[in-house]
Amino acid sequence: MNAADRIRYENRRERLRALLAEAGVPALLVSFAANRYYLSGFEQHDSQCNESVGWLVVTAKGPDVLFTDARFTDAALRLWPGEDLCIYGAGKHAAMAEFLLGRGVKALGFDPKAISVFDHEALRGHFELAPADGLVERLRLIKEPGEVELLRAACGLNHRIMRALPDLLQPGMTEDEAAWQVERLFREAGAEGLSFPTIVGAGRNAALPHAIPGETKIERDSLVLVDAGCRLGGYCSDQTRTFWVGREPSERFQETKRLVLAAQKAAMEIIKPGLPMAEAYHAARRVFEDVGVAGQFTHSLGHGIGLETHEGPSLAPRTEGVFAPGMVVTVEPGLYDAAWGGVRWEYMVVVTEDGCKAL
Amino acid sequence: MNAADRIRYENRRERLRALLAEAGVPALLVSFAANRYYLSGFEQHDSQCNESVGWLVVTAKGPDVLFTDARFTDAALRLWPGEDLCIYGAGKHAAMAEFLLGRGVKALGFDPKAISVFDHEALRGHFELAPADGLVERLRLIKEPGEVELLRAACGLNHRIMRALPDLLQPGMTEDEAAWQVERLFREAGAEGLSFPTIVGAGRNAALPHAIPGETKIERDSLVLVDAGCRLGGYCSDQTRTFWVGREPSERFQETKRLVLAAQKAAMEIIKPGLPMAEAYHAARRVFEDVGVAGQFTHSLGHGIGLETHEGPSLAPRTEGVFAPGMVVTVEPGLYDAAWGGVRWEYMVVVTEDGCKAL
Repeated sequence: MNAADRIRYENRRERLRALLAEAGVPALLVSFAANRYYLSGFEQHDSQCNESVGWLVVTAKGPDVLFTDARFTDAALRLWPGEDLCIYGAGKHAAMAEFLLGRGVKALGFDPKAISVFDHEALRGHFELAPADGLVERLRLIKEPGEVELLRAACGLNHRIMRALPDLLQPGMTEDEAAWQVERLFREAGAEGLSFPTIVGAGRNAALPHAIPGETKIERDSLVLVDAGCRLGGYCSDQTRTFWVGREPSERFQETKRLVLAAQKAAMEIIKPGLPMAEAYHAARRVFEDVGVAGQFTHSLGHGIGLETHEGPSLAPRTEGVFAPGMVVTVEPGLYDAAWGGVRWEYMVVVTEDGCKAL
Repeated sequence: MNAADRIRYENRRERLRALLAEAGVPALLVSFAANRYYLSGFEQHDSQCNESVGWLVVTAKGPDVLFTDARFTDAALRLWPGEDLCIYGAGKHAAMAEFLLGRGVKALGFDPKAISVFDHEALRGHFELAPADGLVERLRLIKEPGEVELLRAACGLNHRIMRALPDLLQPGMTEDEAAWQVERLFREAGAEGLSFPTIVGAGRNAALPHAIPGETKIERDSLVLVDAGCRLGGYCSDQTRTFWVGREPSERFQETKRLVLAAQKAAMEIIKPGLPMAEAYHAARRVFEDVGVAGQFTHSLGHGIGLETHEGPSLAPRTEGVFAPGMVVTVEPGLYDAAWGGVRWEYMVVVTEDGCKAL
């Protein structure tokens, strides 16, 4: 790991230490993969949801300790001092206890959503445990300039691919084939992978907010919704466009798209530091209410995005809190009718000092 | 969902019901994605490790209840009766309680490794909870003929791709480029995706059991280890081969490969129903011990594979239990030397009535 990277992770842990002191947490067990990576650069993903590749413990005064198994010794040593690295075998919790108790760490804060009952029970025999959640997430909410640049680069690949899609989406092509073409374009453009399974909804399937691409063929003179994103430098993109395949778009498509874009614009025009986040949702929804179609807007307006496709904040009617500079969120209103189809349009925006800007 | 599929999932839940009765568990909360899918056909994956798309509750006498959120209503109704489906909003745990208490379900068994402390706390206010783990895994350990066929088909794609690799792996190509070519071949051959991120280790990198493909270029007259797999029909494949790129393989490569294949053969020759699983590991290891290189065999011999790449049983020195017909495991001995490289060779095998057979 080069010096700049090392300093970035150290700075994040220093900021976390300040939050720990504020919350009276003597040391924090970081068990959630994205948080671990954010604070250490070690392995962004666990090998399976039920298979952790390691935990990090951030202590009140440092040094911090990275725990992993022998498969990852080499990867860990590239970015972590050997004396602060604990390689565990089958007796993971006992090994952790021995290592940490030897350093005087007897109490740990933990994230109740990111630790299983099994691990909690096993650690409880060794440590005083107390819930301490949302601290790393609070840091991750505000993106550093370097993170915004990576998100912009990831989103840049989306722009490129969405521009290629009108030529690529042809009548007779299945949703599944289209999804694979999207993935191929992302990968050939340099993405590390998809940030989530691509959604391709042809015709009525566009009305399913969670449409798994299938054997349905794209018909001539019909709509196709594509919701896709990639990972670049570890950061996620997420973008939806709804295309018309064929000649002149139907009036209903044009009118629905016009409304969706108007709702999106209404939200983006008011998003700025200090605005309650729920207001962005309501601003978009009002555009639909004014013409009596708000019932067809069935989900939230958007979500934070960064190391994960879905992270805080959520732009929902009951979200508490206000926008702050450095937040990156999606703005993705949509209108759906199961008997017809749907239109969704999605930008990723970064909150600036005095407004917001599409990435 | 067609009738055959529906009956398959119902049969699995009936078999689980027998295990529940045996264990005195009145109802089981199935929170782990692969288990949920195995028992219901509903959504094989959660959207993120921290974002469940639904839970299943299997009750002593049925009917069983599927819980999900509004994004998945349509997908759930395709395979589950509406009257046994509960769509929750923000108040997930309270909604579950209302639905289940209305049916007289007051106590739930849960898997301590597959439920977070947060969810456990929230459910504890509504239900009597008791740990009940490993029950669905016990069923999944023995593959049904249909599952073996899907695993064979997934593995068949591996055979095809591994055959194409000697022509594809060329000096000057980076590990990263090679990994993408492997993925492209899998997808173009019909795979739904990879079962895990492809490992490509050129030269010394082959000695890292967890080699992330990078910018290292394949050199002429050197070895390249490729460990890759796909998903087909939801089932995973996993296969490793170690190739020589260039003219005549070095003597060391030939000798190491010969030993690894001999160890693999030694294990496969004895695997049969009734054999203690640890014996397979020891049989392979003995081949290495006989020539004094056992210290270079640094991992277990293999693992179960099915809906997940890594599932039970583990073929490790301390594994308890014996082989049984219908188990599908990998057999993947390897020898590694950080200063030189490594050779690993991996088959997927199904345990038959009187031995085992490579898929």
